[in-house]
Amino acid sequence: MATFRIDFGYDGSGFHGYARQEGVRTVQADLEDALFRLTGPVDTEVAGRTDKGVHATGQVVSFVAEVGLDVDRVRRSLNRQLAPEIAVSSVRVVPNGFSARFSAIARAYRYFVLNREAPDPFLARTSWHYETPLDAGAMAQAALHLVGEHDFSSFCRKARGRSMVRLVRHAEWSDAGDGLLVFDVEAGSFCHQMVRSFVALCVEVGRGRVDADDVPGIIAARDRHAAKGAAPPHGLTLVRVDYP
Amino acid sequence: MATFRIDFGYDGSGFHGYARQEGVRTVQADLEDALFRLTGPVDTEVAGRTDKGVHATGQVVSFVAEVGLDVDRVRRSLNRQLAPEIAVSSVRVVPNGFSARFSAIARAYRYFVLNREAPDPFLARTSWHYETPLDAGAMAQAALHLVGEHDFSSFCRKARGRSMVRLVRHAEWSDAGDGLLVFDVEAGSFCHQMVRSFVALCVEVGRGRVDADDVPGIIAARDRHAAKGAAPPHGLTLVRVDYP
Repeated sequence: MATFRIDFGYDGSGFHGYARQEGVRTVQADLEDALFRLTGPVDTEVAGRTDKGVHATGQVVSFVAEVGLDVDRVRRSLNRQLAPEIAVSSVRVVPNGFSARFSAIARAYRYFVLNREAPDPFLARTSWHYETPLDAGAMAQAALHLVGEHDFSSFCRKARGRSMVRLVRHAEWSDAGDGLLVFDVEAGSFCHQMVRSFVALCVEVGRGRVDADDVPGIIAARDRHAAKGAAPPHGLTLVRVDYP
Repeated sequence: MATFRIDFGYDGSGFHGYARQEGVRTVQADLEDALFRLTGPVDTEVAGRTDKGVHATGQVVSFVAEVGLDVDRVRRSLNRQLAPEIAVSSVRVVPNGFSARFSAIARAYRYFVLNREAPDPFLARTSWHYETPLDAGAMAQAALHLVGEHDFSSFCRKARGRSMVRLVRHAEWSDAGDGLLVFDVEAGSFCHQMVRSFVALCVEVGRGRVDADDVPGIIAARDRHAAKGAAPPHGLTLVRVDYP
């Protein structure tokens, strides 16, 4: 037996999220069904279980299968079966013991906010169109307060017994022009809805309804009600997963 | 009465082209229906009647309506009614006699070819995914031969009694990286299917099935069968219309 790694991306618009669920279309089910034709039954592990509507350009899965699987043939076949919503950039053999989920040391997400009156038909599926003008400088300030190791309970859906302590290495807003604001955030791992909750809070700061300097207090509250809900999923993309 | 100009764009994926047709969704019908609520019945003129599946980022229409129409209100209302597929960037009053169609002195189109094995889910709606490797240098050579004033009958669907003589001012392939090849072409006007026929021929040159130096002969043949059909519509976007 050998361990294999697949690097791939998807437009999440047509999926009910990554994780397999009965009766709805999911990325995991499409991917595993396509793999099945080549390898027989496999169990995959995934780096980031994205929510319904969330996209990925840098997703990773791993699985164990028989030695001698032709990785080029697998890649070509997956692309043929899964296009256009899912695209595989590489399939390769990795050392035994590699897990796309547990070996990952960092995940990076990107969120697009289109902050202008006119929509953009070509960004509609991948950005949050927000018409009210936002103060990008204040949002940048808010993001700085998110960096560091904190208990992020204020930004996460509760999961009984699970720690919400995370180390956020990087959180930054940049202005890509024409009203497109880009939030880049990186951490070892994220708890559920954490990135979208960061975005929702930063947008409230950008509107002037929350002060950037209130962010440390909101983190310290460790209370889901202290934050401002979650931004819509379709603006979010998993862009990179790092391994040692 | 006053003359108004609307600058707008659309994702053509969900439309049966620009021009109104009974029983199918078209950009013109959506736009005029939305305008109707603000102005009553209007007849619009359009700069470029795009085919089914073709996109636009720089489309222009003009229409005549009563003086005193609040252009900001019209723009906002159209965006609200037409999002996310159609987006209006501006509505303004122009000198009487202006016609989006007849006053235009140049149109610019862009065509995307994604030339690599792996698809890109985020470019699937706006590019032609072409897996066989293409020689971009040969395609650039072919494009040079298209520039100038020629009878382009070899590249156009026949229209009885209409001249196919056009002045192509610019035709160029560029490499945007990651396999994305971009064709930019500009002319005073284009006849039907002309850009997509240019692309199909250039791709044949890129595959090595036609020599770039054969292009002048194919133009000179003035015969639709001399060229190589038309590339798929969804790779094509009307990007700009120029007025004096």
